[in-house]
Amino acid sequence: MTIPPHWARWGDPDLAQPLPDSARGLVDAAFGPLADHLSVGLDAVRLPEPALPPETLDGLRALVGAEHVHLDHETRVRHTRGKSTPDLLRMRAGDGSDAPDVVVRPAGHDQVAAVVEWCGRHRVALVPFGGGTSVVGGLAARRDGYAGVLALDLSRLDRLVALDAESGTAVLEAGVLGPRAESLLGEHGFTLGHFPQSFEYASIGGFAATRSSGQSSSGYGRFDSLVLGLKVATPIGTWQLGHAPASAAGPDLRQLVLGSEGAFGVITEVTLRVRPVPPVRVYEGWRFGSFAAGAAAVRDLVQAGVTPTVLRLSDEIETAVNLSSPSAVGGGEGGGGCVLITGYEGEPDGVEALRAATGARLAALGADPLGEGPGTAWERGRFAGPYLRDSLLDVGVLVETLETATFWSQLLSLYERVRTAVVRALAGQGAPSLVLGHISHVYPTGASLYFTVVAKELADPLAEWTVAKTAASEAIAAAGATITHHHGVGRDHQPWLAQEIGPVGVEVLRAVKQRIDPSGVLNPGILVP
Amino acid sequence: MTIPPHWARWGDPDLAQPLPDSARGLVDAAFGPLADHLSVGLDAVRLPEPALPPETLDGLRALVGAEHVHLDHETRVRHTRGKSTPDLLRMRAGDGSDAPDVVVRPAGHDQVAAVVEWCGRHRVALVPFGGGTSVVGGLAARRDGYAGVLALDLSRLDRLVALDAESGTAVLEAGVLGPRAESLLGEHGFTLGHFPQSFEYASIGGFAATRSSGQSSSGYGRFDSLVLGLKVATPIGTWQLGHAPASAAGPDLRQLVLGSEGAFGVITEVTLRVRPVPPVRVYEGWRFGSFAAGAAAVRDLVQAGVTPTVLRLSDEIETAVNLSSPSAVGGGEGGGGCVLITGYEGEPDGVEALRAATGARLAALGADPLGEGPGTAWERGRFAGPYLRDSLLDVGVLVETLETATFWSQLLSLYERVRTAVVRALAGQGAPSLVLGHISHVYPTGASLYFTVVAKELADPLAEWTVAKTAASEAIAAAGATITHHHGVGRDHQPWLAQEIGPVGVEVLRAVKQRIDPSGVLNPGILVP
Repeated sequence: MTIPPHWARWGDPDLAQPLPDSARGLVDAAFGPLADHLSVGLDAVRLPEPALPPETLDGLRALVGAEHVHLDHETRVRHTRGKSTPDLLRMRAGDGSDAPDVVVRPAGHDQVAAVVEWCGRHRVALVPFGGGTSVVGGLAARRDGYAGVLALDLSRLDRLVALDAESGTAVLEAGVLGPRAESLLGEHGFTLGHFPQSFEYASIGGFAATRSSGQSSSGYGRFDSLVLGLKVATPIGTWQLGHAPASAAGPDLRQLVLGSEGAFGVITEVTLRVRPVPPVRVYEGWRFGSFAAGAAAVRDLVQAGVTPTVLRLSDEIETAVNLSSPSAVGGGEGGGGCVLITGYEGEPDGVEALRAATGARLAALGADPLGEGPGTAWERGRFAGPYLRDSLLDVGVLVETLETATFWSQLLSLYERVRTAVVRALAGQGAPSLVLGHISHVYPTGASLYFTVVAKELADPLAEWTVAKTAASEAIAAAGATITHHHGVGRDHQPWLAQEIGPVGVEVLRAVKQRIDPSGVLNPGILVP
Repeated sequence: MTIPPHWARWGDPDLAQPLPDSARGLVDAAFGPLADHLSVGLDAVRLPEPALPPETLDGLRALVGAEHVHLDHETRVRHTRGKSTPDLLRMRAGDGSDAPDVVVRPAGHDQVAAVVEWCGRHRVALVPFGGGTSVVGGLAARRDGYAGVLALDLSRLDRLVALDAESGTAVLEAGVLGPRAESLLGEHGFTLGHFPQSFEYASIGGFAATRSSGQSSSGYGRFDSLVLGLKVATPIGTWQLGHAPASAAGPDLRQLVLGSEGAFGVITEVTLRVRPVPPVRVYEGWRFGSFAAGAAAVRDLVQAGVTPTVLRLSDEIETAVNLSSPSAVGGGEGGGGCVLITGYEGEPDGVEALRAATGARLAALGADPLGEGPGTAWERGRFAGPYLRDSLLDVGVLVETLETATFWSQLLSLYERVRTAVVRALAGQGAPSLVLGHISHVYPTGASLYFTVVAKELADPLAEWTVAKTAASEAIAAAGATITHHHGVGRDHQPWLAQEIGPVGVEVLRAVKQRIDPSGVLNPGILVP
């Protein structure tokens, strides 16, 4: 099979490949014979007629330079929506209706501020565009009621602005992508330690704007916990926050910017906690008889303060499918039960002590040690999941993920409720499915649950997924859990955000939005219900 | 010397005592001969004429029961202002001008909500009153423009609402005081671990509303980091927040309630992380040659992840004065240098391992071990500081504290700038002073600085302190540090809060305030610039 054009796929074109045979066998067996489902070509994507008249655009060119104002088809296509499965399905079908009219690449905070001001003046919707990896519709701004839509590409904000080695802090511009952040900090011996699956293509500003959480969050903490300060361009002026590691100077307004998804301003710089690059990194695997036993064990660890850098517990199905190692999906060793990946990063002594303490507790709780093999395999494949999704979409298999978090006492019942809701919602439409789950982020009081849903694609896969996703979201809300642990709100989670924060919370978000962004041009339709 | 009436003093009347001889010798030597400065009697306190007509109050009585609506002189006096030194000075002089007209003791959330609604309807300023321990003017609501002032005493909201042992979470009502919280949780084997100096008299709701931080925060975390959920009575309805240990569902609105100081609603319940009661608690002392060497050592510890439960480093003067043990002030052992108190709480194995790791690092960094003696003395006196202040005020010695936080690279220069500013501001008025400092809360990226200012009382001690405090605040702001690490904003820090969060931050606070509290009755004049 030929690999389809890359523009509607994830990541590095050189890494795109047909579905591996092992995985093909698995889905063939589960869903019956597969057929190619290829995307249209880039040129065939239908975009809205550009809405902004040339004389209006001249003003923009004066602000950032003519060469940084882009109107061409390909640039517009590449700044359309994000990387959720619905986003990919729409693009593969040639639906570019959410494309921006113009893509602008400002050089730094002042130019961003000028473009923000310009958008307010011309009533142009502004979509901050970092890595473009949103999976919740966070880049599909509302078009109606606006003179046009502008994508503010932050890729030129790519500097390490300052590094304070004594304090262990760094200021990074918002457009810096994950690998570049690690490389810039690594030159000084530091790491951020933030490695979400989107790491290779997501940006510092995006991590902040969506409250991202990485695969090593047990050790390094969620992105929001790494943020000490923020610089934001808003329609009513520049907003700088963060004067100390902690403060009692009123509400923590940084926490209002974190998770604001472009609705309250454009984040241009982030001050972050950094740590010395760990000289040692070890990952290993453990097997539990059941998901419940594994969950109890990771709870025991984190409540005892014995916290490895990485803790990821797959459920029985994910273990059987071997999803933690995408290149080997379907080719698991068949040991059964549930596999837990633990990782330890740091100084040799600390790693050894933590590894020993973890191992002793896990063994006492019934885990069988699997050695470093599964750990190394997980580490190799940790960013590869989205490539596998593309390959599955190519053969008519729908794959999407969703996630939530709750307290420990509710975790297993939430797990059952969400799984059941999704499987039933798909079966009700005649689509057989596999729902795989894992715990990826743990806290003393609870954990996240992450689900990967694999289903036979029906004639209208967008409608198919909407039904399944809605069922999952209703189950999450009914259980009193959060609608999203690390993907964000965007457009997709808006109704459940409103339930979660209540009418008073909605009023507060609206009040902040209206005060900061009186003309309503900042990512309209996103986040704020 | 007779001990003056207790109503204008701190804490337990039985613990009030004259200034110990050792301390008297010290201040005599520093400030010259002392004279008694006693307060007026409770009956002599001048209160505003009650502003609310009897028929209006009948409505209140219907909401909470007539026996919970108090108009008597003593109850009004005891709900006037907080416990800052200026608060005490005003009360000792008989100035009760900030007294509420009426004190109401509702029984639970629904009654609180009803009183909030009633205040909005009658344009009565509402001051939420937990333990009454504010030291930043947080209880002195603005009176002008209102029909009257109501103090909402939360002492009847004193229940443990729920305990989830598996998740390690508890729901406490806002009026529960520190010791009762520990006792209620202790029955189930849990502790909150939150021990600010005000612990014995401060409330759960107050801890949340002011972003309190305790003496064991290195181990247990600041209060805001323990909060998982909040229930708030606002004029536009009940607001409940908190569905998971962590979430990406938009801005973290809990962080808008934490630190809101009654301006956005009355916190009625708080869901908190709790931990098993530690079977072992050990405290010990260490001596460093200088404050700089000690600061470098605590930075080393916390950046290496070797974090004792308690870390408190006194500077040279505080060490000489022996302030960490108030009953022995002035009677220090005279070993010189700077004393660091370290504390370890937990399971025996964990405590031993942490103590060994800490000791090895501290010894390598030049600390001399002082054994458990100084640690035990610190623990015994940890809540006693305010009693000493009362005794000093009795003999005409002004004592007040102030605090800030910054990043490690700025810590020593900030320390010098604040000390110098205060000493100069007092000397400029002809008042000799002693300024004692310590680091009480440490983070990987920085620490708090806490100053105790002791000065000879001039003819107008309020004006004297205002000059010194303003000089300290200007120095903090000029250094880019936060105006408060754990005391809060109240009225006293408002101008510097505005600088710290900038014009956009001020607009955001105002927008939230106006939306939630359109009639502006919630603690008017507090927090929001």
